[in-house]
Amino acid sequence: MIALSLIGIGTGNPDHLTLAAIKALNRADLILLPLKGADKADLADVRRQIIAEVVTNPAVRVAAFDMPRRDTANPDYTAGVEAWHDAIGVVWRETIEAHVGRSGRVALLVWGDPLLYDSTLRIAGRLARELPVTIEVVPGITSLQVLTAAHAIPLNAIGANVLITTGRQLTDGGWPDAADTLVVMLDGDCAFRHLAPEGVDIWWGAYLGLPEAITIGGRLADVGPRIIATRADARARHGWIMDIYMLRRRPAG
Amino acid sequence: MIALSLIGIGTGNPDHLTLAAIKALNRADLILLPLKGADKADLADVRRQIIAEVVTNPAVRVAAFDMPRRDTANPDYTAGVEAWHDAIGVVWRETIEAHVGRSGRVALLVWGDPLLYDSTLRIAGRLARELPVTIEVVPGITSLQVLTAAHAIPLNAIGANVLITTGRQLTDGGWPDAADTLVVMLDGDCAFRHLAPEGVDIWWGAYLGLPEAITIGGRLADVGPRIIATRADARARHGWIMDIYMLRRRPAG
Repeated sequence: MIALSLIGIGTGNPDHLTLAAIKALNRADLILLPLKGADKADLADVRRQIIAEVVTNPAVRVAAFDMPRRDTANPDYTAGVEAWHDAIGVVWRETIEAHVGRSGRVALLVWGDPLLYDSTLRIAGRLARELPVTIEVVPGITSLQVLTAAHAIPLNAIGANVLITTGRQLTDGGWPDAADTLVVMLDGDCAFRHLAPEGVDIWWGAYLGLPEAITIGGRLADVGPRIIATRADARARHGWIMDIYMLRRRPAG
Repeated sequence: MIALSLIGIGTGNPDHLTLAAIKALNRADLILLPLKGADKADLADVRRQIIAEVVTNPAVRVAAFDMPRRDTANPDYTAGVEAWHDAIGVVWRETIEAHVGRSGRVALLVWGDPLLYDSTLRIAGRLARELPVTIEVVPGITSLQVLTAAHAIPLNAIGANVLITTGRQLTDGGWPDAADTLVVMLDGDCAFRHLAPEGVDIWWGAYLGLPEAITIGGRLADVGPRIIATRADARARHGWIMDIYMLRRRPAG
C-alpha cells in the first residue's frame, strides 16, 4: 500500500509550515519534488530549501522529476487540463514505483493548500486507479491568507458573502450579484481593468511569502494602473509571477 | 508603542500551528486569553494547552479576561455586533494597559485565521484609535481547510467559482447563480434543509481539529437528515458546537 501525503507548505516562507507538515515530511520514505521548467526553477529551489530546513530524518529520500507541460494549444481548455493531469499521474506512478515499489510513505509538497486551485487531489485520484493508495491531506497556508495578513484586512464584511473566482470568470461574467467581496486567482491579465472602478477597493499581492513579495492596496481607480505596471515589470524581471488580489465594493451612500 | 500580533492557531489541534505562530507567541511580552463563558470552557482549555505546549520563553505572561457577551436581543444585528466589538475593544485595552502599559508586544490567539468570519481585526482597529498600536497578522489554518483535508476533496471544480457564505444568507437568498460550490459557515440551523437536494453533494464537519471531530459526506438527499440528527445530538452532549459544510451541485446530464 502507498500512503500518499499531500502536504500544503504555504507560499515559500518556511515559517508557513505547520507542525503537522513537518511531522508528515519526516515520516516519509520518499518526497516527490516536481520540477516545472526553467521559468520556475527558483520555486523548486524554495522547495529544496524547505526540505533541507525541516527534514531531520536521514532515512527520507527525495526524488525530483520533470513535470509534463500542459498543451496550451488545445482549444478545449478542460480536455487539455484532463490530458495534462493524466500525464502527471503517469510520472508520479513511475517515480514512486522506481523508488519504493508498491508500498511505502510518499509525500508531495503542494504550494499553498491542496484545496485551492490545485490539481494534486485530482491527480492523486488518477493514481489511486492504478496503485493501492491511501490519501492524507495536510492543510497549508494559502496565498489568500498571506494576502489578507499582509494587508491586515478581514476577508469578509460582517456576515457577508465572499466569492473566490478566476481572472477568466471575472472577464467573461463580470462582477456577480452574489458577493461584494471577490478574491481573484489565476489571473494572467489583470481582469480588474474591465471593471468600472468607482466605489471599489483592491488589495493586490505578488510573490507572497517570498522575500521579493510586493503588495499594493487602495482605491481601484487610484492604484489599478500602478498594479498593472508593477505586475508587468516584476514579471519581466523574474521571468514568472504568481499573484492574487481581493476586490471589495463599498456600500452605496 | 503596542505591537499587536493576531495569531491564527488553527482549530484546536496544536499540530496546526505554523512555525511563524510559534515564534510570534514566544516573542510576546503578553498573551491575551479570552474566556467565552462556561459553554465554551473547553476551548479556553485548548488555548491554554497550546500555549503550554509551544511557549518555551519564560518571560511570556498570559492574561485571561472574560469576553463581553453580544446582546442577542438587539433587533438590529449589525448595530448589536458593533456595540459588542466596542465592548471587547475596551476590555482588551484595559487588560493590555494593566499588564504592559502603553508599550510592549501583545499576542492574541485567534481560532482559525483572523481573515474568515472573525472580528479580531475589526476590534484591533478600535484599539488603534485609543492606543498607539501596530498590527501584525500571522495566518492560521481555517476550519474550511480542515474540512476539505478531512474529506480529501478540493474546494473548487476546475477553473470554477466558490462562494463562502453563511447560514443566514443561504436561508434568505437561496443558492446564488454565481457558484456551484458553496462553503457555509455560522449556520446554527442547518440551512441546507431548505434546498432542493437533487444533484447536490454535501461534506460536513464539526469540532474539526479536536479529538471529538465528526465528518459526514455524501449526497444531500441521503445524508442530510443524518447530519441534522448528528448535529443536534452532539450539540446537546457537548453544550456547544462549531461546524462547517460545503455543498456542490453536480453538473447536469
